Amino acid sequence: MLIVQKYGGSSVADAAKIERVAGIIADTYRAGNEVVVVLSAQGDTTDDLIEKAKEINPSPSKRELDVLLTVGEQISVALMAMQLEKMHLPAVSLTGWQIELNTNASHGAARIKSISTERIRRELDKNRIVLIAGFQGVNKYGDLTTLGRGGSDTTAVAIAAVLGADKCQIYTDVDGIYTADPRKVPGAKKLDAITYDEMLELASLGSQVLHNRSVEMAKRYRVDLEVLSSYERKPGTKVKEVVKNVERMIISGVAKDANIARITVAGVPDEPGVAFRVFSIMGKARINVDIILQSAGRDGRNDISFTVAEDDAEAARAALEENREAIGCDHIALDRDVAKVSVVGAGMMNSSGMAVRMFEALAGCRINIQMISSSEIKLSAVIAQADADRAVAAIHEKYFGES
Amino acid sequence: MLIVQKYGGSSVADAAKIERVAGIIADTYRAGNEVVVVLSAQGDTTDDLIEKAKEINPSPSKRELDVLLTVGEQISVALMAMQLEKMHLPAVSLTGWQIELNTNASHGAARIKSISTERIRRELDKNRIVLIAGFQGVNKYGDLTTLGRGGSDTTAVAIAAVLGADKCQIYTDVDGIYTADPRKVPGAKKLDAITYDEMLELASLGSQVLHNRSVEMAKRYRVDLEVLSSYERKPGTKVKEVVKNVERMIISGVAKDANIARITVAGVPDEPGVAFRVFSIMGKARINVDIILQSAGRDGRNDISFTVAEDDAEAARAALEENREAIGCDHIALDRDVAKVSVVGAGMMNSSGMAVRMFEALAGCRINIQMISSSEIKLSAVIAQADADRAVAAIHEKYFGES
Repeated sequence: MLIVQKYGGSSVADAAKIERVAGIIADTYRAGNEVVVVLSAQGDTTDDLIEKAKEINPSPSKRELDVLLTVGEQISVALMAMQLEKMHLPAVSLTGWQIELNTNASHGAARIKSISTERIRRELDKNRIVLIAGFQGVNKYGDLTTLGRGGSDTTAVAIAAVLGADKCQIYTDVDGIYTADPRKVPGAKKLDAITYDEMLELASLGSQVLHNRSVEMAKRYRVDLEVLSSYERKPGTKVKEVVKNVERMIISGVAKDANIARITVAGVPDEPGVAFRVFSIMGKARINVDIILQSAGRDGRNDISFTVAEDDAEAARAALEENREAIGCDHIALDRDVAKVSVVGAGMMNSSGMAVRMFEALAGCRINIQMISSSEIKLSAVIAQADADRAVAAIHEKYFGES
Repeated sequence: MLIVQKYGGSSVADAAKIERVAGIIADTYRAGNEVVVVLSAQGDTTDDLIEKAKEINPSPSKRELDVLLTVGEQISVALMAMQLEKMHLPAVSLTGWQIELNTNASHGAARIKSISTERIRRELDKNRIVLIAGFQGVNKYGDLTTLGRGGSDTTAVAIAAVLGADKCQIYTDVDGIYTADPRKVPGAKKLDAITYDEMLELASLGSQVLHNRSVEMAKRYRVDLEVLSSYERKPGTKVKEVVKNVERMIISGVAKDANIARITVAGVPDEPGVAFRVFSIMGKARINVDIILQSAGRDGRNDISFTVAEDDAEAARAALEENREAIGCDHIALDRDVAKVSVVGAGMMNSSGMAVRMFEALAGCRINIQMISSSEIKLSAVIAQADADRAVAAIHEKYFGES
């Protein structure tokens, strides 16, 4: 089998952890597999490099920041190659440009355009373990780029896709996908399998195991993904197109996302085109809007509320304030003390009585719901941030408690 | 003018030093010059990376060590670009592979084969300051290589050569080439100019300002070199083909090299072919031999003594011991407690009475001479290492004291 494995920064943070990970790689290789390994930068390397940069220039260009940051993954692959050499295993490290991982020109958040399999294939044919620096690529100008958040996951899935790998294993410090954050919800259960779509909802809802971009790519190219622990040798959670009944729970998880903010555009005229004006301003500012609520007000005035990522909140408010006259609103309010709790699962909306349990749980602990949003496979509520952990525990208990 | 500047690791060791160096670069650029800057890795970065590697594998492959070490210079150029950006100067950093600095395949000690001027020229035409990671290249397999000791000097000179630069300035922590090590010899004088050949003798004799490879390359391509201080804004020492009379001293310097060892092959038969046997063994072991002395002995047996770099001493002895029967010697002795002191200058051998002053100086402080070697432009003596500093001071005083 051809297996692509990815190890995150905490899994290769020091010499001892590199040795442990090398043990998993060695076992996979000795079992007769072709092995391609994608690595992230060690532990705090990326943060340390950013700090070094900021000391010199608080707002360095993204191009030069990419030149700086790509060294982190290069260090990881070189060290891992050395570890495998010590174990008398043939290994070779490759950077993003060496495998011609071509991206668009967007420094700091580049998108993969193509990957050459030639060099990787040649090394695999020499029976070598191929170690690839994640997170990095090169644009058409021959400049170094980085893929942004979750970049190494995306590198791994993309390489699995172009190589037609049999498996893509994402090793991390948790041992799979859980029905809720296991550090916060004691009853959280590990899932054997989950669909790409469910995983996408969970990832975008703040369950930070896999980045959305990597899951989207896995879905598009039907990459057989598995999330598993680099500490314990046991099966993790499979992410795939269809999950068989025997593996399935109707609800796959409860998630919390506290990194959101709610913006209220209060007192807009009750006339057609107002919502269009508000959201085209957000579009121009390249700010993604999540949940939207329009409430009927008095005196022919309405309120429009919506949520954005907390990082975008200030920019969103500024853009709206700038266009206040065009919108014709009374005032613009920003509330950062909110969180979104969500229930995700293929059985969510078409199993009767499923959705109502969430409202029952929240009512049971007297938590007020500010906004509600639903899709085929998820149900979300925006509540006060202070209530979020309590809410997740109550919802999880309601759905998974009796099982 | 097109000026290539090179700054060593100590000149860019931290944010404050990067700022200072950026000041020199900025002045050069603002004076209307095209500026290409070659940087070494910051301070102890290379040593730290080697330590990181050794922690994992005491003898990593040279290929992977090169992958690891090249990040040092990449960090330097990115940080310097950020510093220049902060000063609102247009700058762009480039790695070795980005300028297609092609080398042979010899990892850890690669030789430059070619450099593409295309990318550098394009950036200069956009009025940008071009920052190039020194010490690194890429071989025909597309693998990263490093140039070994003095690699960044060599990068700078090579780039100056291919660009046809008007000047190549090597900035360092001393302000030029001195007649002796100024930290040890109080009367040492700075030279305004020195020839390539004299510089080569001084470099190979242990005056560590410029690495031999870079001087050889400068000589071959007639690169106008200057060694100057990154701390003080004043002229340094020019290294060129011919030094005009007005700038010239007959003697350009006194140097000491303590990193040598003397090997004695004692009691070889007094017959033709013995020296050939001894030195072909050294040749096969790829060990460079410096000064050779064959002494006529008694009973038809001779002694052959020669010096090698101290790092090679053990290998040299081992190779000789292995071939002892073929050589037919009594025993092989190794003495590490020796040093070579030398006087260098174009006027050395054809100014009468010049050479004799060195012997006069050594005799004056009762220092015994073990071996002597001379060339057109230098005179060297091997003496006990303990006497070396005293010898240099006495010789320097004899040649430069009265002036």
